[in-house]
Amino acid sequence: VPLGDGVKRLVLGRALRNDRIPRRELSKRTAIPMFASDALSSNAYATQEILLVLSLGGFALLAYGPWIALAVIAVFFIVIGAYRQNVRAYPDGGGDYEVVLRNLGSGPGVVVASALLIDYVLTVAVAVSAAIANLGSVIPVFSGYRGIWAAIAIGMLTVMNLRGAARGRLFVLPTYFFVASIGVLIVTGIIRSVLGQPMMAESANWDIIAQDSFTGLALAFLIARAFASGTTALTGIQVVANNVPSFQKPQARNAAATLGFLAVISMAMFAGITWLALRTQVKIAQRDSDLIGLPIGESQKTVIVQVAAAVFGEWWVLVGILAAATVLILLLAANTAYQGFPLLSSSLGRDGFLPRQLHTRGNRLVYSNGILVLSGVSVVAVLLAQGNVSALIQLYIVGVFIAFSLSQLAMMRHWSRALQHVGDRAERRIIARSRLINTVGFLATSSVLLIVLVSKFTRGAWIVVLAVPIISLVMLGIHRHYEQVARELAAAEAESAALPTRVHALVLVSKIHKPALRAVSYARATRPTVLEAVTVQVDEQDTRRLVREWEARDIPVTLKVLDSPYRDITRPILEYVSAIRSDNPNDLVIVYVPEYIVGHWWERFLHNTSSARLKKRLQLIPGVMITSVPWRLESSKRHD
Amino acid sequence: VPLGDGVKRLVLGRALRNDRIPRRELSKRTAIPMFASDALSSNAYATQEILLVLSLGGFALLAYGPWIALAVIAVFFIVIGAYRQNVRAYPDGGGDYEVVLRNLGSGPGVVVASALLIDYVLTVAVAVSAAIANLGSVIPVFSGYRGIWAAIAIGMLTVMNLRGAARGRLFVLPTYFFVASIGVLIVTGIIRSVLGQPMMAESANWDIIAQDSFTGLALAFLIARAFASGTTALTGIQVVANNVPSFQKPQARNAAATLGFLAVISMAMFAGITWLALRTQVKIAQRDSDLIGLPIGESQKTVIVQVAAAVFGEWWVLVGILAAATVLILLLAANTAYQGFPLLSSSLGRDGFLPRQLHTRGNRLVYSNGILVLSGVSVVAVLLAQGNVSALIQLYIVGVFIAFSLSQLAMMRHWSRALQHVGDRAERRIIARSRLINTVGFLATSSVLLIVLVSKFTRGAWIVVLAVPIISLVMLGIHRHYEQVARELAAAEAESAALPTRVHALVLVSKIHKPALRAVSYARATRPTVLEAVTVQVDEQDTRRLVREWEARDIPVTLKVLDSPYRDITRPILEYVSAIRSDNPNDLVIVYVPEYIVGHWWERFLHNTSSARLKKRLQLIPGVMITSVPWRLESSKRHD
Repeated sequence: VPLGDGVKRLVLGRALRNDRIPRRELSKRTAIPMFASDALSSNAYATQEILLVLSLGGFALLAYGPWIALAVIAVFFIVIGAYRQNVRAYPDGGGDYEVVLRNLGSGPGVVVASALLIDYVLTVAVAVSAAIANLGSVIPVFSGYRGIWAAIAIGMLTVMNLRGAARGRLFVLPTYFFVASIGVLIVTGIIRSVLGQPMMAESANWDIIAQDSFTGLALAFLIARAFASGTTALTGIQVVANNVPSFQKPQARNAAATLGFLAVISMAMFAGITWLALRTQVKIAQRDSDLIGLPIGESQKTVIVQVAAAVFGEWWVLVGILAAATVLILLLAANTAYQGFPLLSSSLGRDGFLPRQLHTRGNRLVYSNGILVLSGVSVVAVLLAQGNVSALIQLYIVGVFIAFSLSQLAMMRHWSRALQHVGDRAERRIIARSRLINTVGFLATSSVLLIVLVSKFTRGAWIVVLAVPIISLVMLGIHRHYEQVARELAAAEAESAALPTRVHALVLVSKIHKPALRAVSYARATRPTVLEAVTVQVDEQDTRRLVREWEARDIPVTLKVLDSPYRDITRPILEYVSAIRSDNPNDLVIVYVPEYIVGHWWERFLHNTSSARLKKRLQLIPGVMITSVPWRLESSKRHD
Repeated sequence: VPLGDGVKRLVLGRALRNDRIPRRELSKRTAIPMFASDALSSNAYATQEILLVLSLGGFALLAYGPWIALAVIAVFFIVIGAYRQNVRAYPDGGGDYEVVLRNLGSGPGVVVASALLIDYVLTVAVAVSAAIANLGSVIPVFSGYRGIWAAIAIGMLTVMNLRGAARGRLFVLPTYFFVASIGVLIVTGIIRSVLGQPMMAESANWDIIAQDSFTGLALAFLIARAFASGTTALTGIQVVANNVPSFQKPQARNAAATLGFLAVISMAMFAGITWLALRTQVKIAQRDSDLIGLPIGESQKTVIVQVAAAVFGEWWVLVGILAAATVLILLLAANTAYQGFPLLSSSLGRDGFLPRQLHTRGNRLVYSNGILVLSGVSVVAVLLAQGNVSALIQLYIVGVFIAFSLSQLAMMRHWSRALQHVGDRAERRIIARSRLINTVGFLATSSVLLIVLVSKFTRGAWIVVLAVPIISLVMLGIHRHYEQVARELAAAEAESAALPTRVHALVLVSKIHKPALRAVSYARATRPTVLEAVTVQVDEQDTRRLVREWEARDIPVTLKVLDSPYRDITRPILEYVSAIRSDNPNDLVIVYVPEYIVGHWWERFLHNTSSARLKKRLQLIPGVMITSVPWRLESSKRHD
């Protein structure tokens, strides 16, 4: 372990003191980039996901693009409006889990928690995969083996987060940088468009092989799928609501303002990018082989890079800058999950829905266990999806909208309860208005959830539909277990355990060597009422030799020899201890077990194997304590 | 664990007492079948293995069969003669390992032991595979998936041996049954041959596709391979030598007589079967597809079943009986390894070449650990070889002849040493004669070893050539480790550990509940010099609540609050304990850790996780004992 400590310190840095937990009270100028990076970053792929679904029907269906984008924007504003109510109602920072837990109880609470935990995993997987895709669009070496590159990127995020380095003001510059880049892109596009300059993507003249001709119901279904994919633009909104306490006062008001600001910026970006993608006639398809015109050996570039190339034309430096900004914001978005996941699992650990140790912070003031779980599952996800954003998106949105819907339902309940306690007319009207907004929010988000479920079910959403109840049941099971144990252990008011009258100490001895002698003298030092050394006779000769040496050495403790007709060491001792206990039920029995501390893992197989089994069995006898008397072998001291 | 005990008793039966270890003093009539079954059973496949190698050169090479068989018989008699010397020299039962260890030292000793361990594994694998092959020759369902069937058979042997049921007189009848069956077969063959009746195997008119035309050196090489395969007939001879103490007195003489008897019977069987196989013109090939004439969908039958079918003709009941006898003796032969392997690994455990626990017997008077290892490795072997006897034979003979050669070398050394101490002329002549016999034995067996190594190296022998030194080095490493530890722990004559003057007891407390209160009262019962309850402050509020309740309950022990600036529970306690030790170096520190005993494996993840880590670290501080105060959760009592 000491060697491990060295490596740990090298990778993770020195431990941080409690009082170095940053006390944040953030101005809007800092808060927006910190909490909005996740929501803003989804603009890097939302448009592309809509176009990808439409491309299944060939070039012609792209005409539906603007309408789908409009629908997404409408839902976005509804959800933002609804979350402004959440923020106002819970200025101490009601994340979806807390809001649902308080208003709807623990069942819906763990469902939301499960959905959110899955979403955090997918935030990492999707954002990192999208970052690699954009990187591969400008630096071809990253266009192959995307799953592997994404896994490597996640590994880097993990180390940064375990070091506690990836937090705070790190977010400010890149977010503004991204917003500015997209701003320049859109403004340039508008100007060139007004000037009537031609702007054509490299793929403008390529052709898409339609998978099918979609008409009637099939067409409606396809459009629903495209809309569902587009709603990825909404992911990340809750981050603001989760972090209300970090804002400057008045917190709720500043947070709500931030949400409004976020909505305007984000939707302007989304609309702008979508418009430009259609204007420059970007063609994109699920598989490279479905595009006629793509040079052999090349991979498709992301929509945002293609748009930038078309708009900026010869100023290719700007394309590189925009790509860099995009990659950066996507990595930061992935990083937000590293704040959220451990925080949520820590809350769940505190509430007893997950193992309690998740609530204990690690050395670097971070919830290391949560970070490691998050990274592990995300790496599996990107490797399975081979870094394909579209494949991951199918799973992503379900969880988001489960959380949205239940959260809005919880808010409706919240306001209804509030109405029961408020008599003032004006106040009642305000509350009723809030309830109306959340009701609209619930209707909108639950409808989207339904659309997402139906249109994406066979394409991966079923995994989430399966995983959410499983995780929820596990969490409820853990909760029940902890509650049961707490009831079992609760000490009654007056209760005070009776003091045992006598202490009967046994020292286990197999040979006369230093560890045994030390165990005997330590046991003597505790001055028990009765002290015996005990040995199990497996081989008559060995035992006779031991007894002779024991007497020769004049050790002032009687040596009791237990016969073992079955040549088994454990059972005679257990039977002897049980006999002592039943003869003197008020006696406390302490068994001293000399133990070797070894230096190498393989030495474990050579020592202590029977004492480990013995200790396990002794623990089951009431009124028995087991004292291990450690003896450090030289090999264990080498790393000191 | 209690549930496991129930299952264990169901499968393994009740435990046996020490005094029920059978005291064997066996008449030759009982001893021969018991210890000869392994050697005799190899006749069931030795002939076939010779023919299989020759078949690579096509039908024509079968003419070499008789000469190869003669060479095998010659070596057999030499080895038997040599082992009669071993038996006389070590009437207390010198197995090859003990003989080599005593005469050549621990290096060659572990080499022999490694070779023997590997051989025991292969005895099981080969014999069981051959049993399945014979079974498949009369009951077609067993002719496919031979690896699986063999694995199942090994599983059954394992359970029988763990129950301790597969021992003793079980061997007597089947061995005589097998010898009698083969006797009837050979006699019938001779009579029909004398009467001039035609005896043709079903495969007599089939043709073998030669793999190559072998001439010159290649032919010599092929014949060497066939001879090497034929020497499998020698496997199992040592079993008699290993078991001399079990014979009636005069033990050495009876054992030597048994060896002579075994040699005559076994070689008569081998010669008879080989003659009949050539006489009935049995054709056999490595792969079914190399045989022209074999009906599609059928598998080849074993040589012994084909011979029996040819000899017994219409009396097909006799064929079935002979096949049954063969299967039975092969399973018994496999079973001998279940006696030998645990016995040898127990000796190795006793001598410190393997983990000591292998020397401790299990409940059923058997060395359970050894049995489980043997079964595990054999199952892997038969699955990898898909139950193919020929594939396994390649590995088998190497180990056997390594043991033979080193054992004979050790005997040469033994007699040379004896010569130095003996003056009497007549005695010297007898010893010199014994030495000559063992020298011839050594020359013969080491030559065969060389032939086997060269002719089989690329076909599998290399695995054993690689494994023997690896296993040997591991064993020597273990030995060195144990010796080092023994030196480290040896208590000097006069040494007696100094008695610590004061006892400083700490009780770890996180909450006030029954386990904590019990730990406090148990610690009080031991009346230490100083007693403190210790808690680590992770959350200020929680700690304040704890302190308030502690005072309200009037617990007569001071509660010490340790601050944890890093929110880590382990470190503050370690630092506190170290501080106590360095302030009072003569004090003994006892840390009482309340622990939960859980009932289900998954509950482990929910409890005790930090106390396990803490205990590990506390063990490294000198002068500290850790006492666990167990608290059984209700869930752990359900199986009582």
